[in-house]
Amino acid sequence: MNASISRVGEVLRASEDVLILTHKNPDGDCLGTGAALCRYLLSLGKRATVVNDGPIPEKFGYLFEGLPQEDFEPKTIVAVDVADPKLLGRYETLADRVDLCIDHHVSNKLYARETHLCPDDGAAALSLFRIFRELGIPIDKPMADCLYTGLSTDTGCFRYSNANAEAYRAAADLIELGADNGPINTKMFETKPLSQFQVLSDAFAGLRLYCDGKVSVLKISQEMLRERGADTDAFEFVTAMSRQVEGVLCGITMKQQEDGSYKISLRTHEPLDASALCGLLGGGGHQRAAGCNAGEDEEASLRVLLKQIAEELGVEL
Amino acid sequence: MNASISRVGEVLRASEDVLILTHKNPDGDCLGTGAALCRYLLSLGKRATVVNDGPIPEKFGYLFEGLPQEDFEPKTIVAVDVADPKLLGRYETLADRVDLCIDHHVSNKLYARETHLCPDDGAAALSLFRIFRELGIPIDKPMADCLYTGLSTDTGCFRYSNANAEAYRAAADLIELGADNGPINTKMFETKPLSQFQVLSDAFAGLRLYCDGKVSVLKISQEMLRERGADTDAFEFVTAMSRQVEGVLCGITMKQQEDGSYKISLRTHEPLDASALCGLLGGGGHQRAAGCNAGEDEEASLRVLLKQIAEELGVEL
Repeated sequence: MNASISRVGEVLRASEDVLILTHKNPDGDCLGTGAALCRYLLSLGKRATVVNDGPIPEKFGYLFEGLPQEDFEPKTIVAVDVADPKLLGRYETLADRVDLCIDHHVSNKLYARETHLCPDDGAAALSLFRIFRELGIPIDKPMADCLYTGLSTDTGCFRYSNANAEAYRAAADLIELGADNGPINTKMFETKPLSQFQVLSDAFAGLRLYCDGKVSVLKISQEMLRERGADTDAFEFVTAMSRQVEGVLCGITMKQQEDGSYKISLRTHEPLDASALCGLLGGGGHQRAAGCNAGEDEEASLRVLLKQIAEELGVEL
Repeated sequence: MNASISRVGEVLRASEDVLILTHKNPDGDCLGTGAALCRYLLSLGKRATVVNDGPIPEKFGYLFEGLPQEDFEPKTIVAVDVADPKLLGRYETLADRVDLCIDHHVSNKLYARETHLCPDDGAAALSLFRIFRELGIPIDKPMADCLYTGLSTDTGCFRYSNANAEAYRAAADLIELGADNGPINTKMFETKPLSQFQVLSDAFAGLRLYCDGKVSVLKISQEMLRERGADTDAFEFVTAMSRQVEGVLCGITMKQQEDGSYKISLRTHEPLDASALCGLLGGGGHQRAAGCNAGEDEEASLRVLLKQIAEELGVEL
């Protein structure tokens, strides 16, 4: 059931002991949106906490500054930016109990009792900002920092086509509400350990081009990470770069996980639909950015994608 | 003399046969601002043209679409985004004749008869946008594309701290006026020849760290460019990356020119003032991004900068 903004307001006001779920491999949008929502609920005197399957990368620590880390039996469960229960990781068992999901992924599985879905929003943070605005909820500086972080990170710092006029205007408002846009972007986009540059360099040394140079494939093994002393944050850096090679319409990054399996990230330009392509392998996401798990033979999974892309582009593989 | 917005309006309305000067090694801001101004003057039925010392990189071609390339004896000369007559290259001889300069560089030499200087603006395009807005000048889609380009490129696509709320709001307005933000940013930021990634990779292989890892130095020779088939656009890519290494407060890129000499680009984080540092070698720019020419011994010039940085940071060189 689709929840209007006023209905979202009702649910949040009626909520008690709220568990806010975010997705695996957390990013600035799910964490920023979750933390902003948590801050609002705390301001109402409710108990609320944001959880995630796995550790929260250190660079996101500022989002949670001053938030209590409480352990309680939740009475209300809200998921933010979580399109699919599978992305809840160890919290997947709670999927049936999610009262409200606030999301912007067109691929949302509508698993929650009620879903406020805004697929045109570049970030779940924009959806929550609109909710706060329309409900007249005051946004303080920490909330503004959280929402700005979500908005900025999910739009590639306003670089991608999902950053529309509303997103820019929301950013302006959030900056006026105190969001530290410069330092936040420096932390999110302009600071990477040297090891990440080295992994990028190594990955490009092994770059493969397919489909007349319209598809780039970069593969990162656990060994490459170990050799450079890099962690999996390097994946994201390489993924962003995979689509930036001139002429490339689809950048494919194959990222080996600790268990040896591979995840595949797609970044596309028009006309390729990353979400539909990843759907072939059971994944999903956005039109221009999506992901999926590779099968046991990751090169076979890659070929499934390449074959479909070649067909769609009408070129030889 | 500082020109108010209404005075700028008077000068522009009274102008005739207008030559618009932009700076050497042109970027999206001087070209976008220049082209937007040119489009306005043409809309008034005047003759106007944008010139630059040297060829305009192909990727900026869309800014000039539909603009006549006329050759005429100028009666009015306007410089945009040009802080110093030296940056005019072969047009430096016209410096004494510049009627109006619209700029946002705090280091502006005030060489023009009148200068409209807005050092708080992240881009000259923002200054011109404000001029258009306050004077009630209609902004059509091509003008919006030009202004958005200037605004986006000079703020690192709204990533740097020079992107304030007004800049974001201007971007929102420009998008609503038709600016193709997604494709523009793709072209400006998200598309680089493979050769640039290769030069980046080579440059990082030779990375030097100074001042307890707070300064990174990347050096690019003409031979490195030749080997990878890259042009000088690679400089900018590497320059942007030089500051992104964790812990680095000043990224220094040494860029060999075709004549064998070196230019030095600085990108800093607080508390280092890039413009003041480059001033030591006769250069200038912004607080966080500036440049200068190296002397004949480029390593000696580098040492001048390193010594000053070490002193300011209170660390060993």
